[in-house]
Order: sequence, then structure tokens, then C-alpha cells
Amino acid sequence: MNRFERSTEELLAISAPLAVEMMTRFLQDEVTKAGFSKVVFGLSGGIDSAVVAYLAARAFDRGQILAVLMPYKTSSPASLDDARRVVEQLDLPSEIVDITPMVDAFFAGDPEASALRRGNRMARERMCVLYDRSARDGALVIGTSNKTELLLGYGTQFGDLASAINPIGDLYKTQIRQVARYLGVPKEIQEKPPSADLWADQTDEQELGFTYEEVDRLLYCMVDLQYSRRDLVNLGFTPRFIDAVAKRVRINQFKRRSPVIAKLSRRTIGVDFRYPRDWGL
Amino acid sequence: MNRFERSTEELLAISAPLAVEMMTRFLQDEVTKAGFSKVVFGLSGGIDSAVVAYLAARAFDRGQILAVLMPYKTSSPASLDDARRVVEQLDLPSEIVDITPMVDAFFAGDPEASALRRGNRMARERMCVLYDRSARDGALVIGTSNKTELLLGYGTQFGDLASAINPIGDLYKTQIRQVARYLGVPKEIQEKPPSADLWADQTDEQELGFTYEEVDRLLYCMVDLQYSRRDLVNLGFTPRFIDAVAKRVRINQFKRRSPVIAKLSRRTIGVDFRYPRDWGL
Repeated sequence: MNRFERSTEELLAISAPLAVEMMTRFLQDEVTKAGFSKVVFGLSGGIDSAVVAYLAARAFDRGQILAVLMPYKTSSPASLDDARRVVEQLDLPSEIVDITPMVDAFFAGDPEASALRRGNRMARERMCVLYDRSARDGALVIGTSNKTELLLGYGTQFGDLASAINPIGDLYKTQIRQVARYLGVPKEIQEKPPSADLWADQTDEQELGFTYEEVDRLLYCMVDLQYSRRDLVNLGFTPRFIDAVAKRVRINQFKRRSPVIAKLSRRTIGVDFRYPRDWGL
Repeated sequence: MNRFERSTEELLAISAPLAVEMMTRFLQDEVTKAGFSKVVFGLSGGIDSAVVAYLAARAFDRGQILAVLMPYKTSSPASLDDARRVVEQLDLPSEIVDITPMVDAFFAGDPEASALRRGNRMARERMCVLYDRSARDGALVIGTSNKTELLLGYGTQFGDLASAINPIGDLYKTQIRQVARYLGVPKEIQEKPPSADLWADQTDEQELGFTYEEVDRLLYCMVDLQYSRRDLVNLGFTPRFIDAVAKRVRINQFKRRSPVIAKLSRRTIGVDFRYPRDWGL
């Protein structure tokens, strides 16, 4: 059987035990390298941040961890319940911060603001809370975005996409599911439809216009295997789908990089001055 | 005369007309490349954002520009006056957004929060305002951090350091002064002591523990000329000063880079998947 006749989950199959081992070591190494001994992350009730919580629980002692639950008034109560389930199951130190007052103060003078602007503001408010706790507790902020979201730019820049280190950013959503199963993430969290939970009944797949199964398969062939457009068409992807996804990846590159600085000197930040870690002084 | 006997301003002298021409073109090119036709930036009343305003006024029509003035209740009224002076002199479209309600809502339950945490939150609130206006108006966010601040990490990550493009990020503070003089930035702004204006009577030089003249000279020799520690000592810099500044540059590298992602696949974002602009699809 040609491997492309397999399901997406089979095609993208990884060794969950090995991936978990690598991500756990990554967390320990990077936190130490950064000179920290604590970590902080947002726990939404979704599968991605649940996986990060399970990884943190393997990597660190409980006293080194803070999980922050940050509901907005329109967030689904089921999400908060799911986040609480993770906290209880892992016995994690946690804090609940209602982001409603800050977000509502922001839009007080602008009641017509779009759902997109409100969603972005919520994501950035959560970043502000995490980085404030980071400064308060001397804790490194752990990111919870997966590779599918990062490639598609399906997230808020300087919001949920912001972090110091991200253990799961090289795993597609369908691979996150494999890891979640191995880690024993609660079934309710594994099985519910993925959602940014920024407004009622929002689901990722409805908003994106395709399923994670479909897009992960394409992204894997496009990005990891570096297949040409012709190869992708031969594998059965429609030109329309290929072009739409390739365009999303391209136009969202700005979310994955640092500010572009005008080059005026012989050593410019982000261009030829990048790696002071390897720098002789 | 040995060139290192010159003043910092002489040692770091640039052609202001040429630099202005390059930064103006940079703004036009990058805004077009990003598919935008408008820009938005914060105007604090300080020299850096004033220079950006003057550059934007050269690069774009007035209708393409929005300058946002974002005072907090403890901000100096003189800063707001200076920002208004720039708006008037250039006849810029502008908006005033008081960030007090959002910041105060954030610390309502934590009256003991440190000045550092409050200052970071103010900087991040301003980022939230600029990115919200960016989404509302389809305007690209222009950064206003200079090379001295970026190298020293003297700024808030995902706050004032966040932007899409930054025309002045390759100019040291003392070079910004040369450019400001050429552009005709109001004298009051050119001459006042640099300040983040996060609390009363804060000045950069007092907080940093050295002057921009001193540190720009050292950074230029260290970063641009890549002089060794021994060369720097021979030039008259004290080992203590060299080591303190080198350490700041090194430990603040995290503020200049995107999140570090655990490598698990053959093409990892930020490692070997970086440049979809140059990517065949």
C-alpha cells in the first residue's frame, strides 16, 4: 500500500513516548539555560494547553509550576471545567484570572468593535497576565501553539502566539492528539471540537473552512516533505485547496518573525547580529 | 588625531540626509510588500517616536498615517504636550487613548504590584491599542525602538518592542539625535532628558546607570566594529563597564527573538523553516 493511501493520523504517526521524552527534556534544558527555575502557562481547557500541562508535570516539581485559567465572560463554562479537571488530575498550583474587566474597559468607547478585534484583545490580555506573573514569580512563559496554528497563522500575534519557549510548536494538531492519548489527557478534552472559545459556538474547523485531518496532511506534504505543487495535485489535493493553504502560510509569515529593521549599519539586529550566545565576549 | 579621541557623536557620525532617505524608502517598500497602504504608531513625546513621525510624514500622505497618543494618569503632561506639538507641526491625523482604565483594572486586585510590573503593563497596553487600530484601519504598526534600547533590552517584550517594521532600529540614540536635528524635530523634544515616562522623574540614564554617550560608544566598538575585550580596555573602557554592558546584551537576547520551539520534525519553524517568501509554491 502506498503510504499516502493511509489516514492522516497514520501518515503523520510519531512515537509518542519518544516525543514526550524529547519535549520534557527540552523544557528542563531551556528553563535552566534561561536562568529560570519556574514556569507559567495559560490553561484554556483545550487539548494543546492540556498537553503542555502534562509535559510540565513530568518535567518539573509542582512548586515550579503555575497554570493560569483566564476566562472571559463569554467563554464557555465547559472550558473552565475542563481546565479545572487538568489542574485536579495533575494537582497543579493554579490561579484563575477573569479578563473581563480589562477587555471591557478597552471596548467601553467602541461598542461596535468586531469579533476579530475582541478576540485579539482577549488573546493579548491573556499574554499580559502570563508575562505579569512571569515578572512577579520569576517564571518562564511556556507557549501552547501547535505547528498547524503556527503555519496557518491561526492565532494572535503578541497574544497566544507569544511565549519564551514552546515544547509543542513542532507537532501538528493530529500529532498533538496522539501525544494527548499517550499522556492520558482527560477524554472530554481529547474528544471535543477544537475551539479558540473567543465567542459562542466558535470552532476552529468551521472558521478555517477545512478539517485538521485535511490541512495537516497537506501541510506535512508541503512543508515537511517539500513536495512540489504538481506532486501535491498528483496526491489528490485540489489546486484550490493547495493555493489557499500556501497563501495562508506565506501571508502569515510576519506572525512568526521579529520586527523587520531597516539596515543602516554593518551589524543590524535580526539580520547580521543574531547570536550573542556564540559571541566571543 | 586617533578617531577614538573624538566625541561619541563624531565617532558615530552618519550622513543624516542619506539615512533619512533610506528609512523613508524602507517604510514605503515594506508597507507595500506587506500589502498595506496605511501605518499606525505610538507618539510618546520623546525623540524616537518623533523621528518616526517625521519619517512617516515624508514617506506617506497624511491620510495614510495615524499617530496614537497614549497617556497613563501618571504620565508627564509635558510629554503629551510634546507629542501634540509633533502632531500640529506635521498636521498628522491622531487619536488620544487614555490607557488608565485598562491598566488600573488589571492591578485592582494587586495594589502592591511593583513599578516594573506596572511599567511593563503600560507598555503592553499601548501595544494592544496600536494592534487594535491596526486591525480596525488595516494599518501596519511601525516600531519606534532605537538600536541602543534593542541591544540593551531596555524595553518591554510584546510591549514597546513589538512592531511589524522598525525604520530606526539600526540607529543608536546618539545617531537618532543627529537625524532629529536634520529633520527639524522640535527643540524641546531634542533637548529633554530621555525617559520611558512610566513613573514620575524617571530618566533612562539614571535607571541604566550610564549615559547614552558612554554606552553608544562602547556598543559601537563592541557590536559594529567587533572589537575584542582587550581592544576595548586599550581604548579606555573599564572592564567593569564592558562586562556589565556585554552581559545586558547577552541576557536580553530573548527579547529580540521569536519563541524557541522544540525540534521534533525535519522542518521546524524558526530553525529550518524560515523563509516562505523565497519558497517555491
